[in-house]
Amino acid sequence: MVRIGLLGCGRIGRLHALNIARHAGAELARVFDVHQPAADELAASHACPVARSVAEILDDKAIDAVLIATSTDTHADLIEAAAKAGKAILCEKPIDLSLARVRQCAATIAPYKVPVQIGFNRRFDASHRAAREAMIRGEIGDLHQVIITSRDPEMAPKSYLASSGGMLRDMTIHDFDLARFMLGEEPTEVFAQASALVNPAVCAEVGDIDSVMILMKTGSGKLCHINNSRQAVYGYDQRVELFGSAGMLISDNQRPYDLKHFDADQAGRSEPYQFFFLERYARAFVAELDSFVQAVAGKTRPEVGFEDGEKALALAEAAYESLATGKAVAVG
Amino acid sequence: MVRIGLLGCGRIGRLHALNIARHAGAELARVFDVHQPAADELAASHACPVARSVAEILDDKAIDAVLIATSTDTHADLIEAAAKAGKAILCEKPIDLSLARVRQCAATIAPYKVPVQIGFNRRFDASHRAAREAMIRGEIGDLHQVIITSRDPEMAPKSYLASSGGMLRDMTIHDFDLARFMLGEEPTEVFAQASALVNPAVCAEVGDIDSVMILMKTGSGKLCHINNSRQAVYGYDQRVELFGSAGMLISDNQRPYDLKHFDADQAGRSEPYQFFFLERYARAFVAELDSFVQAVAGKTRPEVGFEDGEKALALAEAAYESLATGKAVAVG
Amino acid sequence: MVRIGLLGCGRIGRLHALNIARHAGAELARVFDVHQPAADELAASHACPVARSVAEILDDKAIDAVLIATSTDTHADLIEAAAKAGKAILCEKPIDLSLARVRQCAATIAPYKVPVQIGFNRRFDASHRAAREAMIRGEIGDLHQVIITSRDPEMAPKSYLASSGGMLRDMTIHDFDLARFMLGEEPTEVFAQASALVNPAVCAEVGDIDSVMILMKTGSGKLCHINNSRQAVYGYDQRVELFGSAGMLISDNQRPYDLKHFDADQAGRSEPYQFFFLERYARAFVAELDSFVQAVAGKTRPEVGFEDGEKALALAEAAYESLATGKAVAVG
Amino acid sequence: MVRIGLLGCGRIGRLHALNIARHAGAELARVFDVHQPAADELAASHACPVARSVAEILDDKAIDAVLIATSTDTHADLIEAAAKAGKAILCEKPIDLSLARVRQCAATIAPYKVPVQIGFNRRFDASHRAAREAMIRGEIGDLHQVIITSRDPEMAPKSYLASSGGMLRDMTIHDFDLARFMLGEEPTEVFAQASALVNPAVCAEVGDIDSVMILMKTGSGKLCHINNSRQAVYGYDQRVELFGSAGMLISDNQRPYDLKHFDADQAGRSEPYQFFFLERYARAFVAELDSFVQAVAGKTRPEVGFEDGEKALALAEAAYESLATGKAVAVG
Repeated sequence: MVRIGLLGCGRIGRLHALNIARHAGAELARVFDVHQPAADELAASHACPVARSVAEILDDKAIDAVLIATSTDTHADLIEAAAKAGKAILCEKPIDLSLARVRQCAATIAPYKVPVQIGFNRRFDASHRAAREAMIRGEIGDLHQVIITSRDPEMAPKSYLASSGGMLRDMTIHDFDLARFMLGEEPTEVFAQASALVNPAVCAEVGDIDSVMILMKTGSGKLCHINNSRQAVYGYDQRVELFGSAGMLISDNQRPYDLKHFDADQAGRSEPYQFFFLERYARAFVAELDSFVQAVAGKTRPEVGFEDGEKALALAEAAYESLATGKAVAVG
Repeated sequence: MVRIGLLGCGRIGRLHALNIARHAGAELARVFDVHQPAADELAASHACPVARSVAEILDDKAIDAVLIATSTDTHADLIEAAAKAGKAILCEKPIDLSLARVRQCAATIAPYKVPVQIGFNRRFDASHRAAREAMIRGEIGDLHQVIITSRDPEMAPKSYLASSGGMLRDMTIHDFDLARFMLGEEPTEVFAQASALVNPAVCAEVGDIDSVMILMKTGSGKLCHINNSRQAVYGYDQRVELFGSAGMLISDNQRPYDLKHFDADQAGRSEPYQFFFLERYARAFVAELDSFVQAVAGKTRPEVGFEDGEKALALAEAAYESLATGKAVAVG
Repeated sequence: MVRIGLLGCGRIGRLHALNIARHAGAELARVFDVHQPAADELAASHACPVARSVAEILDDKAIDAVLIATSTDTHADLIEAAAKAGKAILCEKPIDLSLARVRQCAATIAPYKVPVQIGFNRRFDASHRAAREAMIRGEIGDLHQVIITSRDPEMAPKSYLASSGGMLRDMTIHDFDLARFMLGEEPTEVFAQASALVNPAVCAEVGDIDSVMILMKTGSGKLCHINNSRQAVYGYDQRVELFGSAGMLISDNQRPYDLKHFDADQAGRSEPYQFFFLERYARAFVAELDSFVQAVAGKTRPEVGFEDGEKALALAEAAYESLATGKAVAVG
Repeated sequence: MVRIGLLGCGRIGRLHALNIARHAGAELARVFDVHQPAADELAASHACPVARSVAEILDDKAIDAVLIATSTDTHADLIEAAAKAGKAILCEKPIDLSLARVRQCAATIAPYKVPVQIGFNRRFDASHRAAREAMIRGEIGDLHQVIITSRDPEMAPKSYLASSGGMLRDMTIHDFDLARFMLGEEPTEVFAQASALVNPAVCAEVGDIDSVMILMKTGSGKLCHINNSRQAVYGYDQRVELFGSAGMLISDNQRPYDLKHFDADQAGRSEPYQFFFLERYARAFVAELDSFVQAVAGKTRPEVGFEDGEKALALAEAAYESLATGKAVAVG
């Protein structure tokens, strides 16, 4: 039984708490939030103790691991503290908005050799994963192109956007990670174009963009395209296309079920997509936790490591540089 | 909190036990099986007490309801006993293989006025249910035709078939119930044709059929077709089509996700269907239990009552008569 | 070059005229219609001579074949006259509304041994045909079940209905033929249920039905279901499902192309179906003519013979008897 | 009646000849090919006269228009000669492989004011066109992103590749034109990445690439992605996605019909795509000709003008510059 202390009891923290509570090999040992009532409420609903400080969790010898679901600006500090306390770590993405800080954190925790997993939950989506596995089995021969479509159903509130670190670090970072997962080798060149099309006024206020297209190339010449939008009115749009010498795989959007509607105006309207990531990736969050629990229990390396968080952020940085210079930027 | 005693710890009993254990408003109070080790094992995995007799559950004043998941030949007796003990009842289908026995059971339990729900889980499938709700909202105008396709992935073992009561009572009964659910009125005529095509040798041995087509008509002239096979090699095939004056709704088969494969021999192969009812109707079993728990807690009538079990069986009887006579048989 | 005289210059006659004119191996030799202006207009647009009488075509030694696209009540007489004149015959369905008259016609023409093809154009639909060919190649093992869905987009005018011979002879007859084509053996039992649901008032006036379900069984036990409606508001609905021991084939509806629409209310609305038989079966009419031209030129038997017209009508008769008696009717 | 002289009787010339012959408002007046037997054979099959020289066609006062389907290196010369002769012109793409030559040609023909149409047939594809029309009607609000997937089924022969002018001028040029057609405004920045992945050996020999990804941005900030491959083993892959503020439109690949196959290994394999452009765009070629004939007859401007040919080539040039410099290149 892996005993996990939860840091952060917001929306994503509550989701993880529920998954931990239902996991046969894990136990929600203690929960903490800077906003105490949030921790109290979550603790009550899972009948688990509350911690009044982070230290209370890090000092508890009975706790094996921490799940960090606090605000982004605390991630690196908490990772360092948890590593020093010898806890295994599952930290929500991104590690930090500054690549320099991420690298410093990496150096700080290196000696402690604790398992660290970054919350790139999409790697655990059954559909994306089955696509990758079919590719690895050779079903499409050599991989030539990866095309990732990733669009949110609606724009986040201005307050969120203002502190998000920018669209490439906040949203595209998931796709940079997914691209690395699918490409099987590192991108060596990144090019980006971006616009404020969904809501130019808000973008101007917060100094951000809302529409992005990325091109990347790997050392062996594989090509990768990512497109993002902050708003797809038809629902959360999450597709991955793998194109190779012997075929193609498309991990398509998902509906809760397949009900088709036909009437005088149309033939074959389908049900709407699952609304957003909490719905689409619900099972991915469960699988992500399961992978972490197995790694901690089995004393193996987590599937998605600290360096994956660092590399995805490096791609986001390169994309920002490309936006600024109009050039493809070398990475890696 | 609805406290439930489980009678029968086989495959379907274990599924119900898990759903009860996870349900926020229900509690697995005690489990029983004539094969004691099955009960012991299930009790251990849910940390709940074992009952050494049915009476131990029926006499327990703290138990509100029983879930009957024993072999079919015990259902009617257990329903009667549970009703006399004042327990709410969720009983797996069919109530009994004999319509006469079912009617006797109905008479026996009538005075006790306990809530009784029959386990026609497909009514709780989100897709079929959404189709029905869209129809009731008027999306397809007046309903004219219902077409139900229902095929198992593979033939059950001979021993199962021999004691199943025959394909129409064992398998088609689900579709008779679903037809009634969708038609919104009672069929008044039933016609059946059947063959032994999948495995004529086994059918001959057990005196059964494996391929069935049904036609039904309601009082107002609505038409309904059911087709069944004991073996669809491409997977569990569960489709419902509702055709009306203003449109059509198709509740189609479901895949775990939508991954499409393209190669030199084909364009767009999809993932296989979910294997069988435990997979396809997994969430329906949860919703079925939830509906029962709410009915018991709220002291309302269950959505699927004893009379639904009786009427589906009456349609199966009529279909057998039709097979024997080559005539449409009046019912209702 | 096969020289063809056209009898009947209505909608379907004009379609055939165009197909003949475009066919590399056929020539539109002369056209006739009882309504002379219709013949004049068609002749003008194809720059071909008009015949002022049927005899003018039948007596023309340079004419190899006639295409009969006149009203149904003239078909049998014209077939007999053309056979006596030694012409090959392509006659629109049905041969006649009376099975007795059809059989008399068969006897009359037998001595003349001319090639006769009946216009069951759906047999030449590339999709249905590819399904049948895949089945014959063994792709689905032994055939167990055939399900045919066939619904018109809208109800024909009352005047048409009144002289149509009834829905089973006019509309279902296509599906009876398609069923025979797919089953590969003769149905031996027919059962029918029917209602007036689309337009009960018009049905009452003309003494017809508008919604039909059929069950059939063959000598070896194969099962077949047909469902029909005079009105599918979402468009012409033409589907064939072949289910067998090793798989299933579905010949589905067709759209002119695959454009998908996504908006705030829906995800993935497709374009409407092709409107009606002139659109859906446009290429089937071309292939039908081509098959006839090849048979005439090659002096081979047409693919769809007189006896196919007779047998489809016999199934319609049996279905009417079933409606009247509530029994499955033996045929063949 | 528009009388058309055909220059070039190769594969694409023969296709145009057939479409002209079948067009109610056009006539195949005379055909020419430098390889005389090709012209003789085509003339024979359409019963039209052969021209022994280009001049014979240009000097014929009865000829209204020429269709140029000769090898690319002759296009600009023939356009100039035909313009001087006062003929309307439909010329296969590209106008020339050199942008300078194209601009010189534009200047040369300007005084003659003849209608000139360039053969970007994809603009006439019913599916792409319906997508654009739905967008223009406002169905997806403001356009934000265009994604074009365009992959050939197999690599062309080395001899063809060697004289093709390079993948961007030969293949991507279609997509540059389609992008302009969909974007509704000019791209102002072009970025390209490319690799030799399908057949590096042949690419090395002919100095070309076989895998391309493009990003473009317009003045108002719209983003556009194109991906190309010289070989998609699953068939000709032609998709256009239009993403906007109020929805999305996907013009998807087409199959000749919709037959689905299910067996023990899979559920729902579809028929292969139409093989290549002659099949997929067969109707687009007909519509293209029809548009040209209407423009000539109605003395209106062709829908796709000389400047469209020039602008698509300018984008290809910019893409080559981007490949060489690793920078986004300004255009327009």
